[in-house]
Amino acid sequence: MMDKMAANLSVSETAKSIDALVTPALLLDRGRLGHNIQGLAERAKKLGVVLRPHMKTAKSIDVARCVFPREPGPITVSTIAEAEYFAGHGFRDMTYAVGMSAASAIRAMELCRRTGVDLKLLLDTVEQADVLANVLEAIGVTPSVFIELDCDDHRGGLKPDDPKLLEVANRVVAAGANLVGVLAHAGESYGLSTPDALVKAAENERLATVRAAEILRAHGHPCPIVSLGSTPTAHFAENLEGITELRAGVYMFFDLVQHGVGVCAIDDIAISVLATVIGAKPEKGWVLVDAGWMALSRDRGTANQQIDQGYGVVCDDKGRVLEDVIVAQASQEHGILAIRAGSGKSMPKLPVGTRIRILPNHACAMAAQHDFYSVINGENPEIEARWERIRGW
Amino acid sequence: MMDKMAANLSVSETAKSIDALVTPALLLDRGRLGHNIQGLAERAKKLGVVLRPHMKTAKSIDVARCVFPREPGPITVSTIAEAEYFAGHGFRDMTYAVGMSAASAIRAMELCRRTGVDLKLLLDTVEQADVLANVLEAIGVTPSVFIELDCDDHRGGLKPDDPKLLEVANRVVAAGANLVGVLAHAGESYGLSTPDALVKAAENERLATVRAAEILRAHGHPCPIVSLGSTPTAHFAENLEGITELRAGVYMFFDLVQHGVGVCAIDDIAISVLATVIGAKPEKGWVLVDAGWMALSRDRGTANQQIDQGYGVVCDDKGRVLEDVIVAQASQEHGILAIRAGSGKSMPKLPVGTRIRILPNHACAMAAQHDFYSVINGENPEIEARWERIRGW
Repeated sequence: MMDKMAANLSVSETAKSIDALVTPALLLDRGRLGHNIQGLAERAKKLGVVLRPHMKTAKSIDVARCVFPREPGPITVSTIAEAEYFAGHGFRDMTYAVGMSAASAIRAMELCRRTGVDLKLLLDTVEQADVLANVLEAIGVTPSVFIELDCDDHRGGLKPDDPKLLEVANRVVAAGANLVGVLAHAGESYGLSTPDALVKAAENERLATVRAAEILRAHGHPCPIVSLGSTPTAHFAENLEGITELRAGVYMFFDLVQHGVGVCAIDDIAISVLATVIGAKPEKGWVLVDAGWMALSRDRGTANQQIDQGYGVVCDDKGRVLEDVIVAQASQEHGILAIRAGSGKSMPKLPVGTRIRILPNHACAMAAQHDFYSVINGENPEIEARWERIRGW
Repeated sequence: MMDKMAANLSVSETAKSIDALVTPALLLDRGRLGHNIQGLAERAKKLGVVLRPHMKTAKSIDVARCVFPREPGPITVSTIAEAEYFAGHGFRDMTYAVGMSAASAIRAMELCRRTGVDLKLLLDTVEQADVLANVLEAIGVTPSVFIELDCDDHRGGLKPDDPKLLEVANRVVAAGANLVGVLAHAGESYGLSTPDALVKAAENERLATVRAAEILRAHGHPCPIVSLGSTPTAHFAENLEGITELRAGVYMFFDLVQHGVGVCAIDDIAISVLATVIGAKPEKGWVLVDAGWMALSRDRGTANQQIDQGYGVVCDDKGRVLEDVIVAQASQEHGILAIRAGSGKSMPKLPVGTRIRILPNHACAMAAQHDFYSVINGENPEIEARWERIRGW
């Protein structure tokens, strides 16, 4: 045990091996990342749509370059800060997929004027459409705009048959802006767990989106882009007729929520948090590690799924799952490992100093707790690269 | 409505007024912060103990200087990165209140050697004690060590009457390290909600801690520091006889969880997230804002309290609570405001472009999602200062 602890005496953030990395640390498996990226790229190609990946999960130019080695997009972003960052790295075709305010539209159009990027905005009210005239006047750039659709009562957006759809479209045009199309996101698909239900959700998302585009076209709005997507529906859509582009983000990394939905295998999950054992409570079957919610995030997305994974599934230091060991509780800098309730297993020996990897409930949330990825490949402890992430708004 | 949107046309991260701040943005109310700091300082003085505030919540030298305008501590830290940061700003007396590994102990002692700070470590196993000899040999600095106590089955630590307490103490001394005392944290107090239960939890924490110190002293270990604390027990302890120091962290900001426990008033909560309305679903009673879990954190600490506050309580742009309006749902960059279930209230008019403030379930988690505080005072929109935060490990 002393040998195990002594082996990791000297650690640093720029170590060459994960054995010498300061913990907790975010690991990214390059092989799994590449496999996930290739998988959806091939699907999109087969379905005859453009893939516009969402960069909100990775927030990293290096990950973006795994999808687009040279191309200037297309990508989706979740903040204007992401748009500014990716514009600075040569990306040109972007959609800001959060409803615009006057302030965010101004920032977006300032970016377009300054860098020449094409950053498309999203809206679903006449009030937002009306403000576009002010934006155009203030910045001198014509905003390109999507109307947000609601296909499953998830969040914002207009139902295709809502009379406001045409009203908003007309006001966008009246404001002098460029209506580029409609955009839907089947967010409720995260709550599903059977292939049948996922196929149905994908088809429902398609029908709503195509219908909205048809209504707009019937009234003289060309609607060149017909965009939809969520990681679950993107992987279960059987037919995307009438759709021009597909969006998804978390698919690059995948996570335990997506595994619970049925979209990926555990072995597809490309990120994990490396942690060190710092104590134990044998009488309770607990092992304590130095990764709490600050490193794992507070996300408990599997709590309502068939298998509750606590704050994450525990693997050994090579990434091999320790069967039925989960992070049962988390405080700020402490994780408590325990055997899943109802399992016949007992806790493996994990002396103080042992290193483990923890798979995320939700990759977007776990990754957001860290400033960089230590890039590895499979069981090899060698760190191949350090990839920075951005944050903020 | 157009006026409201147009009013906020130009925003920046370094605005002079919160009206021109990029949203979502973390606000810190200087008056409330000062009031909270003073409150516990006076309590500690009356109870005759040293207050060693925990910097894990604020992670900011500027906030630390509100507690200690010139003094070099004492403070508590939750990561070695915090210790390095506060050492760089002149703090000298620190406790790293997470169980040590060989690697963290080495980093800690390297910091002590380099800067002359006194950074005390925490352990509860003979394995950790045994590794201290290696640490001393490798760095040439004698580690100062607390034994972690378990007073309420919350996490790690030894029960005072566990024979391992003396065994660990003897091994610390045998390794050539300096045993400075015992340290307890009544973490289960966060789950309480009545004054009686809190007073009892505080007294239980005191009795366990004092008993451990007495046992160690009876066996020749002087145990000069007898340390305990959690924000709830720190505010309800009626007697701290036998205790030398008190620790608490979240009390500087307070939050809705602490309000639910009964430790603070809503009006004591010093941080909030400023957000902008970006849409609505009137048929569902929803208003959408640009603050999702990325800005608020995924913390749902009030979910098991008597009043579930969703992802946070909503105030107007001056910080006045909008009665029964909460953030009912959150996705990455979207919050959905709704009226609390069972309330007779209806949603106030919040047109697109309106700004609101959202109070945190858990201040440590919300603040961790941001890189800086925009410091304000009460209802005044003027930003008095921008205080940076640190993160990472």
